[in-house]
Amino acid sequence: MSNEKLTPRSENYSEWYNQVIQRAEMADYAPVRGCMVVRPYGWALWENIQHALDGMFKETGHVNAAFPLFIPMSFLEKEKEHVEGFSPELAVVTIGGGEKLEEPLVVRPTSETIIGYMYSKWIKSYRDLPLLINQWGNVVRWEMRTRLFLRTLEFYWQEGHTAHVSEQEAIEETLRMLEIYTRFATDYAAVPVIPGRKSSSEKFAGAINSYSIEAMMGDTKALQAGTSHMLGQNFAKAFDIQYLDPNNELQYCWTTSWGVSTRFIGAIIMTHGDDQGLIMPPKLAPIQVVIVPIYKNDEERARVMPVVENIRAELASLRVKVDDRSEVTPGFKFNDWEMRGVPLRLEIGPKDVEKGSVMAARRDIPGREGKSFLPQNDILHAVDELLAQIHDALFERAKTFRDSHIQEVNSYEDLVSAVEKGWAYAWWCGNGECEARVKEDTKATTRCIPMDQPEGSGECVVCGKPAHEKVYFARAY
Amino acid sequence: MSNEKLTPRSENYSEWYNQVIQRAEMADYAPVRGCMVVRPYGWALWENIQHALDGMFKETGHVNAAFPLFIPMSFLEKEKEHVEGFSPELAVVTIGGGEKLEEPLVVRPTSETIIGYMYSKWIKSYRDLPLLINQWGNVVRWEMRTRLFLRTLEFYWQEGHTAHVSEQEAIEETLRMLEIYTRFATDYAAVPVIPGRKSSSEKFAGAINSYSIEAMMGDTKALQAGTSHMLGQNFAKAFDIQYLDPNNELQYCWTTSWGVSTRFIGAIIMTHGDDQGLIMPPKLAPIQVVIVPIYKNDEERARVMPVVENIRAELASLRVKVDDRSEVTPGFKFNDWEMRGVPLRLEIGPKDVEKGSVMAARRDIPGREGKSFLPQNDILHAVDELLAQIHDALFERAKTFRDSHIQEVNSYEDLVSAVEKGWAYAWWCGNGECEARVKEDTKATTRCIPMDQPEGSGECVVCGKPAHEKVYFARAY
Repeated sequence: MSNEKLTPRSENYSEWYNQVIQRAEMADYAPVRGCMVVRPYGWALWENIQHALDGMFKETGHVNAAFPLFIPMSFLEKEKEHVEGFSPELAVVTIGGGEKLEEPLVVRPTSETIIGYMYSKWIKSYRDLPLLINQWGNVVRWEMRTRLFLRTLEFYWQEGHTAHVSEQEAIEETLRMLEIYTRFATDYAAVPVIPGRKSSSEKFAGAINSYSIEAMMGDTKALQAGTSHMLGQNFAKAFDIQYLDPNNELQYCWTTSWGVSTRFIGAIIMTHGDDQGLIMPPKLAPIQVVIVPIYKNDEERARVMPVVENIRAELASLRVKVDDRSEVTPGFKFNDWEMRGVPLRLEIGPKDVEKGSVMAARRDIPGREGKSFLPQNDILHAVDELLAQIHDALFERAKTFRDSHIQEVNSYEDLVSAVEKGWAYAWWCGNGECEARVKEDTKATTRCIPMDQPEGSGECVVCGKPAHEKVYFARAY
Repeated sequence: MSNEKLTPRSENYSEWYNQVIQRAEMADYAPVRGCMVVRPYGWALWENIQHALDGMFKETGHVNAAFPLFIPMSFLEKEKEHVEGFSPELAVVTIGGGEKLEEPLVVRPTSETIIGYMYSKWIKSYRDLPLLINQWGNVVRWEMRTRLFLRTLEFYWQEGHTAHVSEQEAIEETLRMLEIYTRFATDYAAVPVIPGRKSSSEKFAGAINSYSIEAMMGDTKALQAGTSHMLGQNFAKAFDIQYLDPNNELQYCWTTSWGVSTRFIGAIIMTHGDDQGLIMPPKLAPIQVVIVPIYKNDEERARVMPVVENIRAELASLRVKVDDRSEVTPGFKFNDWEMRGVPLRLEIGPKDVEKGSVMAARRDIPGREGKSFLPQNDILHAVDELLAQIHDALFERAKTFRDSHIQEVNSYEDLVSAVEKGWAYAWWCGNGECEARVKEDTKATTRCIPMDQPEGSGECVVCGKPAHEKVYFARAY
């Protein structure tokens, strides 16, 4: 709880980010380097994210399970690209029960290997396929430079792992999950994202193709907010995941994996937040509506509180908090809940009681413009409508901001200047050397080759050779 | 999927236990010694357990958060009993990102220490109390002899950690959670439990008092199915968890912790299961009702399936599975779902279509006795009622079994023979030496000093000295 002003985003974006997380009590630094504690307010947001995604996963036939935290070191070594990608980031258990272990155990950085091992035991026939399992859990990657939510040693996520009879089915699954992530970002988090394919150099270690959703943060940097990987038969061959087809012949499966993590909380903070604090998207907000009773004395309080309780009861289907603290002023409360990003504040005072109305203040529109009076009767309907409007307004604002910071460029010079102040959208020949040159010169990387491509072809913005796809370049988190 | 017969419980209980878990696809052995994979059917049960408990926690003002997996070794050493209790069981990370760590990190066996550290940062004033936080997560204890669900290196649980202004409030919280666990076991899992206080030698390492709920398994052994600890000021002093009281004086907090784990799944299996397989308590069952359509040919199928679909739609508020597999017989399906313990099976054939009825078969009552015809109209009501009856019957059966295997004993000789075939209930002076003698002679330990005590006093069943409390002795998992 604090009414201190935040460092403005324009002054120091990264300082603003750290402050808003601390002041809103979303997370805290753990006593272990690079680890975080997700505090109740932050975890409540994650639970709402989990609930939304889990529903979409189950609707599409996925089930949850739990695989072990520890993976034998030898497992990682079975897929060459995979071990190369992850070995610099591993936390390793070498002692168990006071004894040195014969084989060190890796704390999972991701679970393709151990799940692949189990799938090879479980899958016998084509009748066992597709196998569509998801896991909610924690993973560890030994990162050197960490940021709360964005990059921490331990983080929370879901990882889906599926096995299929054919390449075609695996591709469909990979794209289905990309679609679900896009829908989740848009419909629940009000975060506009661009779904697309990652370049070879940016793909998951061990994948044939990786796909991602990319979002623009308030400082115009890009954030990869979810990924979906087509793993081909790489892990099936490494772990011998085979099935008998209808002709009784052994075939290797085709597998996929896909994940969204607590990083998405960082995306929400940096997409919607302003200099007053967080702005929570209404569908995921831990508290959707805060009610602040306004009174000067006990007599007024006695008139106001029954109405407050009525309104709370009417709004029982929403996540509502009544802030009846006596030790702080209404003004303090307003600032406090603005910091925490509660999308809608209702104020109820003696005048409102008389008039049968409630004062509503939108978090996304400061000052008088965001205020309106709602009728006490039919309050649920009025509040639902306002929350839906806030969702749409947040999405539109973020999309307008993003689109105004994407520049379509045709020359290398324009590309270099575009990624200084936003994203560049350009033809690219697909050559890794061109990509590397841009990174070297500007720190911008290819974010994704969007699914939605223009007609025709052009010239690579770097080398000028023929190019058949357009790509986004941007500095990224 | 298997129709093989299980080893009967009377022949080899432990073999029966392992088989039923594998055949019902509840869990599997992981490639790391002592670790398990919880398969989708087992995890669905855990999700239902989580949902029930989480609701009860939230109703009583608790919120969820997430604390780190890794704990600096030095933290554990701050509370003397705690480190002594846990140090033989630790998994230790000594390498991170390819480098040897300066301070080894323990993979949490429980989180009192790291949560205590964070509480000391967060708690300033009496206004911040009580602090009531729960965490759902995984913990690791390096056990030597492991059993699926009952004792595994890694397991899943919830751990509640609360801080209070006074001893009285901490005691109330400890007992409140014991009460919630008792209610959960009884009302959701249909597992009768005895709530009570643990003896000194059986209490949590670092607690003043530990409480548990104790259940009797099908082989009469006891299983501790949930614990709640009053930690006094032990951890508050070790981690400097202090608050300013209303007089502006610094005081140490009083803390508690409490947990239920995936071990509870073992309790459900061994309380209700029979020689045909699992029996799931209806309120927690992943599948509450399975519908098996019965037909001999396409013409019959065409008449039966629309009714099946109607019934499924009527039962939409329940967890229902329609088993329309064509490659196996109805008889195979019956055995399969009996193995998995689905509480209620509905069969619908051409005759049922004509008569407007449905054949219902209770999992808990085999043969004709458990069968009845339900009317197709008002099916939801009839099924709800049957499920409630099954819940009650499971509870009563388990309670009758338990009570008939508890012997009230007044002599050491009777005690020794009682714990061979069940539990003994006896006066105990409270002396650890008496407890140790019983353990030495019979392998039975004190399970709990039940909250519900008889009037008066007696003589210790071991030493004959005055005793003021009665206790349960039993061999335990």
